[in-house]
Amino acid sequence: MTATQKGRLFLVPAPLDFGCDVQQNITDSLPMATLQTAANIQHWVCENAKTTRAFLKRVNDICPLSQPLQSLSIQELPREVHKKGDHAGSLGEGFDAKPLLQSAKAGSDIGLISEAGMPAIADPGSSVVRAAHTLGIDVIPLVGPISLMLALAASGLNGQNFAFIGYLPQDAEPRSKRIKELETLSRQTHQTQLFIETPYRNAALLKVLLQNLNPQTHLSLSLGLTLNEATTCSKKVALWRQNHAELPISLPAVFGILA
Amino acid sequence: MTATQKGRLFLVPAPLDFGCDVQQNITDSLPMATLQTAANIQHWVCENAKTTRAFLKRVNDICPLSQPLQSLSIQELPREVHKKGDHAGSLGEGFDAKPLLQSAKAGSDIGLISEAGMPAIADPGSSVVRAAHTLGIDVIPLVGPISLMLALAASGLNGQNFAFIGYLPQDAEPRSKRIKELETLSRQTHQTQLFIETPYRNAALLKVLLQNLNPQTHLSLSLGLTLNEATTCSKKVALWRQNHAELPISLPAVFGILA
Repeated sequence: MTATQKGRLFLVPAPLDFGCDVQQNITDSLPMATLQTAANIQHWVCENAKTTRAFLKRVNDICPLSQPLQSLSIQELPREVHKKGDHAGSLGEGFDAKPLLQSAKAGSDIGLISEAGMPAIADPGSSVVRAAHTLGIDVIPLVGPISLMLALAASGLNGQNFAFIGYLPQDAEPRSKRIKELETLSRQTHQTQLFIETPYRNAALLKVLLQNLNPQTHLSLSLGLTLNEATTCSKKVALWRQNHAELPISLPAVFGILA
Repeated sequence: MTATQKGRLFLVPAPLDFGCDVQQNITDSLPMATLQTAANIQHWVCENAKTTRAFLKRVNDICPLSQPLQSLSIQELPREVHKKGDHAGSLGEGFDAKPLLQSAKAGSDIGLISEAGMPAIADPGSSVVRAAHTLGIDVIPLVGPISLMLALAASGLNGQNFAFIGYLPQDAEPRSKRIKELETLSRQTHQTQLFIETPYRNAALLKVLLQNLNPQTHLSLSLGLTLNEATTCSKKVALWRQNHAELPISLPAVFGILA
């Protein structure tokens, strides 16, 4: 590699067991090519350096790292990006991540990783990807678990037309309003609407959904995908109202509706 | 396993090299757990039995199949589902896939697979998943490549709010109208709009997009994801108009816009 050849930005997915009591085998959810690529990356951009080191230890158990863990460069995204997201303000006015990509400009590959799943999807990181495109650095997404799509496939809802809209509002009145808006939109466009919630609020959100949605609307809830307890329950709201007792409701969740 | 215990429906992702000249290593895009699970499944529901057998041969090279290939049961989804999709008509009035799940009712696991990527996402299969939920059969999605999300992550566009809307209309006038509708929707909601095209029409669609979109709109095009030639080009339309000559434009593509 010559001094002028740029490094690449690899998007490295992480297992979905972040914060869970029992860790799965990393080979359960990451292909060997993803593990091998990760093992060779010496410069990382991440949400949290500590959990990135823990991830790399798991990688090392399968594919030995090319350099000792202590010698790797691990940069964290600023707190501001965690809180406000990469797209605060209009496109291009968000966080400028170009300084994080210095080592790629100098010829080294960089890995971008989030706490669980794919960086830049329902997670920070897109500002880093945009900066790479601006700098002419190749962006290469690696295969791994993406909970939104595992949930969509497992829901049986429309996978030819769907949207992910992030989190619903937390306050009761705007939340009910948003639920009804999404139901109307889904009825008009036949588009599945996916959204997520902080695990300790899953039960409360499910209750509010069952109060607000039409009995004929289809509601899917996936919990703990890729974990041993993984489950997806998908049925009409009328049937949910009859029975939804025995779900592992405090696991990471993806909700979907189709009206 | 007792006679009354039901089998499960596994959603088995396939590599993204379907129809490509060079096949990749299956371990590049499928985790070992996915390969091991697939190797143990004796009943399959698929788009095409021939390509399913080719997939299983590739699995067998890594994880020996539990039964000889010739003895496996492989059922194809009817042509009607391929053409009209699983959601023709309103939800629940589409294709009734319950008869395809007889062996799960009898206690055997079933694998659902499409030609490339995840079944039931931008591909047939959701009718089978819905039938499983109706019959009380557990649905378990396995990890593998999903081109829409690899493309979204690699685009740097908004991954906290996005929609996939399938194909654009083929006729010139409704297509231009739809492009402008999607651009307006994206501007109003800050939602990334993803869509796909049949590979031989990619170049024509790109041309029409560059004619119709606002110069300040961000356009991303991912081609051949997970293949050696994989590339993602993501920039404003004004920059696209200056230069878009050297892309492998006839590879499977995912388009994304953010206005």
